[in-house]
Amino acid sequence: MHAIENVCIFGGTHGDEMSGIYLLKKWKGNPTIIKRSSFATKTLLANPEAVKLARRYCDCDLNRSFTDENLKSETVEETPYEARRAKEINSLLNSGSGPCDVLIDLHNTTANIKLCLIHNTVGDFVMHMMNYINSKLPQGVCNNICISGAKQSTFDLTSCGIGIEVGPQPQRVLRADIMDLQEKATVHSLDFLELFNTGSVFSETVVPYHVIKENVKFPRDAEGNICGVIHSRLQDNDWTPVKAADPVFTLFDGTVVLLRDVISSVIIEDDIFYPCFINEAAYYEKDTAFVITTRCQKAVAKLQKS
Amino acid sequence: MHAIENVCIFGGTHGDEMSGIYLLKKWKGNPTIIKRSSFATKTLLANPEAVKLARRYCDCDLNRSFTDENLKSETVEETPYEARRAKEINSLLNSGSGPCDVLIDLHNTTANIKLCLIHNTVGDFVMHMMNYINSKLPQGVCNNICISGAKQSTFDLTSCGIGIEVGPQPQRVLRADIMDLQEKATVHSLDFLELFNTGSVFSETVVPYHVIKENVKFPRDAEGNICGVIHSRLQDNDWTPVKAADPVFTLFDGTVVLLRDVISSVIIEDDIFYPCFINEAAYYEKDTAFVITTRCQKAVAKLQKS
Repeated sequence: MHAIENVCIFGGTHGDEMSGIYLLKKWKGNPTIIKRSSFATKTLLANPEAVKLARRYCDCDLNRSFTDENLKSETVEETPYEARRAKEINSLLNSGSGPCDVLIDLHNTTANIKLCLIHNTVGDFVMHMMNYINSKLPQGVCNNICISGAKQSTFDLTSCGIGIEVGPQPQRVLRADIMDLQEKATVHSLDFLELFNTGSVFSETVVPYHVIKENVKFPRDAEGNICGVIHSRLQDNDWTPVKAADPVFTLFDGTVVLLRDVISSVIIEDDIFYPCFINEAAYYEKDTAFVITTRCQKAVAKLQKS
Repeated sequence: MHAIENVCIFGGTHGDEMSGIYLLKKWKGNPTIIKRSSFATKTLLANPEAVKLARRYCDCDLNRSFTDENLKSETVEETPYEARRAKEINSLLNSGSGPCDVLIDLHNTTANIKLCLIHNTVGDFVMHMMNYINSKLPQGVCNNICISGAKQSTFDLTSCGIGIEVGPQPQRVLRADIMDLQEKATVHSLDFLELFNTGSVFSETVVPYHVIKENVKFPRDAEGNICGVIHSRLQDNDWTPVKAADPVFTLFDGTVVLLRDVISSVIIEDDIFYPCFINEAAYYEKDTAFVITTRCQKAVAKLQKS
């Protein structure tokens, strides 16, 4: 693997996720926080129009607009703002001092997820990066999730992209604790890249990660309206193991719904799952009440710059 | 004081405050929860267009549209949706079985306010109601605030209006604990009215309440951008006493800002204030970072229906 030359940090991919937006402002005032000697770091306010409105997006989700289909399509009058912006960003990332090697995308969630690093491969480089960031934070704060197929729905022109998702933080609110954790995770990411570039050796190890088993939908009545709420035992318990017999919803008529009642995968009583993105505000429109993951591990080889 | 004949419960005055919206759905399926023998209870989804969009409002804040000026103005083509809706609601409240005697308006906040009852008078009837609801809940859960002048900016056609504000809940999210607390506060309100109507005597007592001292603005840089965040010692500590020397903001350059630096009222070191609505998402656009209140008490006479 070659040296990292260009790193780009995105804030405001979603215009109501405030800590990335304000970290960019903070770092503008104090650029040494994100400057490293061995590579160039640039920042980009990804969706400035949505930031102005303090909304997730104007026309459509920017984070779902980096598809081959969109990036290669012709821009016409009806092309939504975010589809245009995805093309613009793609050009920016490949212009100037050369293509972006590592993209860091800052996000927030209303779920009690603490720090969740999102990646789309389990290659040795990325997994060593996950391991390094995790090692720098108190135990239990950092989890990571590999979203397979993300290549088709997120940034596809970078050799390495990670999402730094931090919560709980309400949409449109800036919290000191969340901003601080997101900054720490970013700083550790940059430190890892600097160590890699300057010849550090990362020993072979085993790195845990999560993969998505299923997005669980909200319970709905005959008219299609949501008719229940996340069960109080599941709410705020992102990453706490759940099994088939655990309660996940309380319907408005008092009925308790168990995980086995709502999951479409075939599961057995003793299977253990790790829920996350529990009650994320933006996932209501995607009909996702929470996400069920399984925990895996990857044996990674020694890493050293070639 | 005459018997209460008509009670109206509003949900969805703000379209992204979910527990009132869903309590209305729940009670539609189980109306006995809000039905009482001595008065009629009706419910109203106050801002259905904003609820569809899951936004606070479409054109302007409905909760600030019940002004004499608006209610008496002529509707023209340019009249905003919420200004029209306020007039419609005003008519509805005065039609049918007679004028609404008590209005209960269900709200959420992203602040850690627990239950905050909002009223616009400290009359004996309202203060006995505050006292009754508080007595039915665990200590420390319920606070109440008198917003003087609210008559001009909220509903002005009802003899008694109370807001049941519950948090913390992110905008667009429905939480079981918040929904449950809001339902309990509503049920206790209705129980109080039923007890009053059926001849119960409420002994003379002293009822604590809060009044607003000042809305504290966000710190801003020379270009007018927010340049700091609520201090971690203030965040989530709604109703915890603060004094002049307590930290309230951390600027992005690390500077800690004290209460005395941001409050415009003249205060002395030992004055005690009770902050609330700390980091409420919807108040960013109103440039309110938090609200400073003082605690008062009102001696109320024995209450019994005449």
